[in-house]
Amino acid sequence: MSFDRLIKAIDKTGNPTVAGLDPKLDYIPDTIKEKAFAQYGRGFDGAAAAILEFNKGLIDALCDIVPAVKPQCAYYEMYGWQGVKALSETIDYAKQSGMFVITDGKRNDIGSTMESYACAHIGTTDICGEKLAAFGADALTVNGYLGSDGINPLLNICRENDKGIFVLVKTSNPSSGELQDRILSSGISIYQQMGIFAESWGEDTRSLYGYSAVGAVVGATYPRQLEQMRKECPHTMFLVPGYGAQGGGAKDIIGAFDADGRGAIINSSRAIMCAYKKDGCSPEEYAEAARREAIRMRDEIAAAISER
Amino acid sequence: MSFDRLIKAIDKTGNPTVAGLDPKLDYIPDTIKEKAFAQYGRGFDGAAAAILEFNKGLIDALCDIVPAVKPQCAYYEMYGWQGVKALSETIDYAKQSGMFVITDGKRNDIGSTMESYACAHIGTTDICGEKLAAFGADALTVNGYLGSDGINPLLNICRENDKGIFVLVKTSNPSSGELQDRILSSGISIYQQMGIFAESWGEDTRSLYGYSAVGAVVGATYPRQLEQMRKECPHTMFLVPGYGAQGGGAKDIIGAFDADGRGAIINSSRAIMCAYKKDGCSPEEYAEAARREAIRMRDEIAAAISER
Repeated sequence: MSFDRLIKAIDKTGNPTVAGLDPKLDYIPDTIKEKAFAQYGRGFDGAAAAILEFNKGLIDALCDIVPAVKPQCAYYEMYGWQGVKALSETIDYAKQSGMFVITDGKRNDIGSTMESYACAHIGTTDICGEKLAAFGADALTVNGYLGSDGINPLLNICRENDKGIFVLVKTSNPSSGELQDRILSSGISIYQQMGIFAESWGEDTRSLYGYSAVGAVVGATYPRQLEQMRKECPHTMFLVPGYGAQGGGAKDIIGAFDADGRGAIINSSRAIMCAYKKDGCSPEEYAEAARREAIRMRDEIAAAISER
Repeated sequence: MSFDRLIKAIDKTGNPTVAGLDPKLDYIPDTIKEKAFAQYGRGFDGAAAAILEFNKGLIDALCDIVPAVKPQCAYYEMYGWQGVKALSETIDYAKQSGMFVITDGKRNDIGSTMESYACAHIGTTDICGEKLAAFGADALTVNGYLGSDGINPLLNICRENDKGIFVLVKTSNPSSGELQDRILSSGISIYQQMGIFAESWGEDTRSLYGYSAVGAVVGATYPRQLEQMRKECPHTMFLVPGYGAQGGGAKDIIGAFDADGRGAIINSSRAIMCAYKKDGCSPEEYAEAARREAIRMRDEIAAAISER
């Protein structure tokens, strides 16, 4: 139920991190691309084949030490339906490798349409009485601007299918404050209000570790707000982007964790995917370099948590 | 530039409406489904084939009297990558038929990722120096919760490629007020603030008719707010959902139009797609029934505008 599966996987690996799979072609070693282009052409088919191959290498290198992956839809959609097919195949491969999959789609819509997104990404679609999983991730990021009837269809599916959602609360980007930091007449900020919504939307899905099926996205680039939201949202699991390439470090994210060192999962995308570029090693060793960076990040976060 | 192409198409047809293409299998006549399932099986391939056939019939029946279509991504994603392929083919077919295509994806993310969404839906993707359009719509709906750096990548593409975006301001669903109606310490509501953002984001893309490349989504189900926002956002084109099946009528949407009868496009999805069910005619005549409903809606709106 809710995020118990994710928390157990974090406990088992001793690693509260998720590897972002944002496979822009620029990030993919030339050897993988050239092989894919030779076989499928220099178009979306070739790009999609390169993406899948790249992702599989990362998943193979990470699956025993990183509990989860987070494919970002944008980097698949930009390669057309072929890219979206590669997203679907990536999710399947990660699940087969024992990883928890968070699809980062930030989906949002009104009730009847949100139900379709929920079916698409974490539920099943009914075709003539047969229920088929379209993308079948374990969790989905969502945007709560439309209020509870854009969230309720997800909650039904979370309950029935043991899935979770992460609602955008305080995002990691520089301009996140333009709207999110504005103060309401009630005296709290919009992101705090969204945190209150997340707590209440998840209220009747709390489980083993006290966390509900409704998590929140809170960026590593705003450590003060992260610490504040941990206090204000004690039953809300945090997905924390912005560590690494966006500038957040280990000391910036310790506030995301509860007294037991639980309650958060830290994302790193480029720093892991492109570790081979920073390492200066051969592009063919991208997977090994990703593993080294994932271990470094795991140990850095563990040290920061134990030192606090 | 900006929404000039859309406004010209509205003027030419005398019809400020957009037909939503939300092809749930339930809406598709059995004969189309059975033919598709017989050829491609009772899975996502068959569903996608049925969706495309259904959409083509609607587009053929509407393209000379309705200026635009709005495919809603959720109803394609729920049928897997095959459904997303049908989305891509639907967009191509609508454009070939001379229609303006608004992809309803409500996409949102931080800068670098939003750039990928922008490329995917209204721009082009660079593959080894060649620029290919992944989905190639004319406009995209977006969610502005992340602030300007989630919008700027879209603006560059709007300028370069003559495209537009619609930012969610006041959505049509019952719970839209939970967040959007809250009053900020400045004394205005969150949706008003989002309207101010939309005006300012579009500021340097205003064109022929005074409207910018940044439109706003404002629901027909909140007529008072629609009228208010028309005054507060004089350079922002409105996409108005909620007419028809969601309860909004012709008198509810007249406030969306400026003194020249321009500045808004009204969406109808189910009422057009499923007109054959309401008409009680044969499901084989779904396209003719859709055309009759589109004409009825056009005339109803024209009458309401001229009577005000």
